[in-house]
Amino acid sequence: MDRARAGLTDEPALLQIRRAVRRWLRGHAPGGRVCVALSGGADSLALAAAAVPECTRRGGGVIALIVDHRLQSGSAAVAERAAGQARALGCTEARVLAVDVAGSGGMEAAARAARYDALGAARGERPVLFAHTLDDQAETVLLGLGRGSGARSIRGMDAWSDPWGRPLLGVRRSATRTACIESGLAPHEDPHNADPRFTRVRLRSEVLPLLEDVLGGGAAESLARTAAQLREDDAALAVLADALLARAAADGGADVRGVTTLDARVLETEAAAVRRRTLRRWLHGEGVTGLTDARLRRIDALVGDWRGQGGVAVGGGGPGVRVVAMRQHDRLTVMREAGAPTGADPK
Amino acid sequence: MDRARAGLTDEPALLQIRRAVRRWLRGHAPGGRVCVALSGGADSLALAAAAVPECTRRGGGVIALIVDHRLQSGSAAVAERAAGQARALGCTEARVLAVDVAGSGGMEAAARAARYDALGAARGERPVLFAHTLDDQAETVLLGLGRGSGARSIRGMDAWSDPWGRPLLGVRRSATRTACIESGLAPHEDPHNADPRFTRVRLRSEVLPLLEDVLGGGAAESLARTAAQLREDDAALAVLADALLARAAADGGADVRGVTTLDARVLETEAAAVRRRTLRRWLHGEGVTGLTDARLRRIDALVGDWRGQGGVAVGGGGPGVRVVAMRQHDRLTVMREAGAPTGADPK
Repeated sequence: MDRARAGLTDEPALLQIRRAVRRWLRGHAPGGRVCVALSGGADSLALAAAAVPECTRRGGGVIALIVDHRLQSGSAAVAERAAGQARALGCTEARVLAVDVAGSGGMEAAARAARYDALGAARGERPVLFAHTLDDQAETVLLGLGRGSGARSIRGMDAWSDPWGRPLLGVRRSATRTACIESGLAPHEDPHNADPRFTRVRLRSEVLPLLEDVLGGGAAESLARTAAQLREDDAALAVLADALLARAAADGGADVRGVTTLDARVLETEAAAVRRRTLRRWLHGEGVTGLTDARLRRIDALVGDWRGQGGVAVGGGGPGVRVVAMRQHDRLTVMREAGAPTGADPK
Repeated sequence: MDRARAGLTDEPALLQIRRAVRRWLRGHAPGGRVCVALSGGADSLALAAAAVPECTRRGGGVIALIVDHRLQSGSAAVAERAAGQARALGCTEARVLAVDVAGSGGMEAAARAARYDALGAARGERPVLFAHTLDDQAETVLLGLGRGSGARSIRGMDAWSDPWGRPLLGVRRSATRTACIESGLAPHEDPHNADPRFTRVRLRSEVLPLLEDVLGGGAAESLARTAAQLREDDAALAVLADALLARAAADGGADVRGVTTLDARVLETEAAAVRRRTLRRWLHGEGVTGLTDARLRRIDALVGDWRGQGGVAVGGGGPGVRVVAMRQHDRLTVMREAGAPTGADPK
């Protein structure tokens, strides 16, 4: 791996990170008033260290928000230490947000939900910057590949998804570590980041290094570049899908039950990629859940491969209610049948 | 990994492969007259074994084409043995095509070019079926990820790209091996398939198994499913790019030098994903080469981020000719300057 690729250019790493933050602020927060989500790890410490001077010169400033998930003993001390580092870096304020992690969908998902809730409540009118790097983006793309849902799952993270900003998606993780060393900052090492029970940790420590070796380097950059292009592809197709949804729903509109129906004849001449995105949007709008790729393809076949077949059972009906997407008189509709077996069919 | 995922359903593997071939023939060669590209390996032997009965029942038949690349000693004997197996399977004809591998771009690329040339010349009016499996597709996607050129590089192989057909892209490689055992066929084991100097071999033997392990199985299917969706996305965007190219080139058309110029004002309101595909098509049509993602983005900035900047040097001029894509009077054009330093700039 060459020096530039490793983030080891002759330029100080902090300058590289400041430049990335500057570019982001120019596009999204020209007044320089932001929050930084700070864990105390190297990435977010380096982000805070870069954001303070960049925001200050724009007449703004940085509020550090430190979420204490209270999942490990000593987490309060870690949070307080990060808050102290934030103040020493010149953040105008450093607030510890203690949260209760509870809920369904596993610990990681619950912690994530609690974190976003707390940050969203504390940010006021400011965007919240996260320190996700190019390496995080590459890991996200690989995770998405494992889900296999096309562009939607491997498009990675956005640099701006109101109110969340990610200025460092083009910066290597090695640069944030170097920036901390340059700045005399001692980052907190989260033991979770080395725990091989987490898929992301193994992608980082095993899969990506092997992929770099096999492909001759540049795998992380390639994954990030691919994600950027797929986001643009997805955005272009989403605009088309929105327009198609409006056209297909016209004339019919909501029926007596309040269900929006779609004209299959309008859909059938469209490209499959646009058509399926349109169907997905429509079904989400109708409260349908559990839309696997296989199920969506069977619903799309009601348009693209219509042979008078029956409806496709989907999720979202709640207890005792069966939900079926079907074609009737050349319109697609969603039927809810009470008293029928619950949930979607297994396919 | 469950049995279905490993291709180990209770159904004989050959039946699964026959069903895949049947589906392909229905869509692309209903008369059942095809060629099969046969290497003598398990995949192509199983394909031939499945194609013979499926084509025969349609009133057609299979011609086996065996390319002898003459790169390894004993290759003629391997080819003759495969031809014998093809005849025993009931192929109406088995032809060995001996080729000379030479040319630029490395041995693998040269062998590939020679192979396609020979198959194209020998096929007559028939499509040529290749035995690429779901596993090959997954490897192709991973290889494409290493190139990092977005949907274009990770869309994988097409089931039909006239005159080349790939009926087994949904079939696991394990199924072709099992089908050979079921049918008493002894496949040739190409030593190249175990040579870790080939990137594809290491993706197959190291990266994919690790990815399966880390992601909890299903990685190959996910990669293949993603490829299928990205092909559809790419196809939809390609149609839009063709239409945009026609609109942007209208009014201007080819100038006195025979160069087609594009109206930047027409391009600038379009989605970036469509615009860049349009520019790529246009530049290819103008004989431009060496279009990296970075360079294409700089050319696109002449439209999307126009600040009066200069042209972008590209490749394709030949000795002593500098080629530059630039914006003049709100039209994009390609200039060729003789006598200037050769080739594109290094960025």
